[in-house]
Amino acid sequence: MSPSSYLLFAIMASDLMGSKVLVALGGNAILKHNEKGAAEKQFENIQKTCAHLVGLIRDGHRIAITHGNGPQVGSILLQNEMSRDILPPMPLDVCGAQSQGMIGYMLQQSMRNELNRVNLSIPVVALVTQTIVSEDDSAFGNPTKPIGPFYDGFEAQSVQQNKGFEMVEDSGRGYRRVVPSPRPKKIVETDTVKALIDNGTIVIAAGGGGIPVVVSENGRMKGVVAVIDKDLGAQILANDIGCDVLLMLTDIDRVYLHYGEPNQACIDRMTCVRAKRYLREGHFAPGSMAPKVEAAVKFIDGGGRRAVISSLETGREALEGKAGTTITS
Amino acid sequence: MSPSSYLLFAIMASDLMGSKVLVALGGNAILKHNEKGAAEKQFENIQKTCAHLVGLIRDGHRIAITHGNGPQVGSILLQNEMSRDILPPMPLDVCGAQSQGMIGYMLQQSMRNELNRVNLSIPVVALVTQTIVSEDDSAFGNPTKPIGPFYDGFEAQSVQQNKGFEMVEDSGRGYRRVVPSPRPKKIVETDTVKALIDNGTIVIAAGGGGIPVVVSENGRMKGVVAVIDKDLGAQILANDIGCDVLLMLTDIDRVYLHYGEPNQACIDRMTCVRAKRYLREGHFAPGSMAPKVEAAVKFIDGGGRRAVISSLETGREALEGKAGTTITS
Repeated sequence: MSPSSYLLFAIMASDLMGSKVLVALGGNAILKHNEKGAAEKQFENIQKTCAHLVGLIRDGHRIAITHGNGPQVGSILLQNEMSRDILPPMPLDVCGAQSQGMIGYMLQQSMRNELNRVNLSIPVVALVTQTIVSEDDSAFGNPTKPIGPFYDGFEAQSVQQNKGFEMVEDSGRGYRRVVPSPRPKKIVETDTVKALIDNGTIVIAAGGGGIPVVVSENGRMKGVVAVIDKDLGAQILANDIGCDVLLMLTDIDRVYLHYGEPNQACIDRMTCVRAKRYLREGHFAPGSMAPKVEAAVKFIDGGGRRAVISSLETGREALEGKAGTTITS
Repeated sequence: MSPSSYLLFAIMASDLMGSKVLVALGGNAILKHNEKGAAEKQFENIQKTCAHLVGLIRDGHRIAITHGNGPQVGSILLQNEMSRDILPPMPLDVCGAQSQGMIGYMLQQSMRNELNRVNLSIPVVALVTQTIVSEDDSAFGNPTKPIGPFYDGFEAQSVQQNKGFEMVEDSGRGYRRVVPSPRPKKIVETDTVKALIDNGTIVIAAGGGGIPVVVSENGRMKGVVAVIDKDLGAQILANDIGCDVLLMLTDIDRVYLHYGEPNQACIDRMTCVRAKRYLREGHFAPGSMAPKVEAAVKFIDGGGRRAVISSLETGREALEGKAGTTITS
């Protein structure tokens, strides 16, 4: 074989043999919009999600999984609120940890069940995961991320006065507490995630973007009141464990320009340069598609091969470039 | 070197080089009796606990950590109860998973901080852990383990009628729900725990004895309403990952005969045979010292070298046989 044809063969073979993929699951992988959060319903949705993920495994990919936790941490915060007269409410970092345990358990059990259904026996494990953010992040001076229950105007004022929470009006549905959403710097448990995925374990990590912690000068870690964007958390982890692909699964089938307008146009493929231009031009919704495209760009700039954004249902085809939006250098 | 002196050297060296130890933390490692469960208080206690555990690491031991979750899962159940009119309450298995996330996070962060204080950088990670029990376990026909809030007689009757919970009077403080406490058969995530401890990671696993699951004939796992004894869960894990020592840390300094009576006598060392005899004779309190001694006996019978029962504060000395109670074959 000539050197160049050997190279081509190696590239093809590595594609055939499957990639190391970080799968970032959107909220709809666990609860659809307007669904109540009963455990049975969450297990039912998660089982379907896991059937899709097992498809990736059967294609030969090694995967790590991250997931959102908005509705679950919202319920936990509300439960803390409802029982505050008799039990000390837990701070947001501890509530986030609870949601990682809860969602991690449901995913871990359902993944094993779906693997078992196709006679695959692969270890699956969910890790409690912390994400380092900077105390100097400007987000701490400008909380923007709504969390927890909705309040009417009167309650909101009382909550603001009594607890010092910042409150904002959210989408016409009432007032909510807002917390800072600082940029993730590093996942504390990166080495463990890497060791596990490299030995063939399916790892669930960085749920809800990871529990945000700051590190003081003497190296001491401490949880902070903040929420990390799940896709940006996933990107940091994907780069640091050396993933080939960052696959972000959400409730729309691909990235669009002028989404929902008459001149809507879908994007099947784009370069990092193009994606950056679209981001600058404000094409994507903040808190929704914008952080996904931003995570894609950062992943490629950080050495990743491909970032893919697609629906949960078409994730397998999207990994082969037959669905969704692929972003490359 | 003669064969016999070589053997002696090998035994001494292996003792000097440190053992693989499973540390089972009692409830007082996280919350003392009658303490309210505010997060700050739990972190404060856990930090002290971790300072003791770091002592074991400095002595060269590799450790995995299990812990109880009674007060925490009790609070989560109560929060679910208080908000049941607006949020679907989570079943016991999911509440247990939440408590693993919560306590795992606090332990994981505090262990890193205490290691950092003595300039050690060792990965620490908490895993969501499931424990297989048998559907045929006789415990399912005879629930004995009290969990969650206390009710007065009238409330208890209503809860029993409306939800079908079994209720019992508990220690003169009111009525509580009781659930089955089946025997653990296997920790589902054993291989992952073993891989991590063997690569030098400090693993936190099987919190609260693990989330109880049953496996159907087709291999499908499902959570069940039950609570697993933490020490028996720890014993299964310790044997299956090949630990040399099972170290059970609690709030008394060692095992006693006739505890609290005029003829009280402490036990520094005992053989497995002797321990079994004392168990048969009913020397130890059910749900307290009895399951610890039983776990010790099973650990030794399963190939473990030493089981040690001591207070948290004297764990380090107890591992050297200078405190606590050591059980050997």
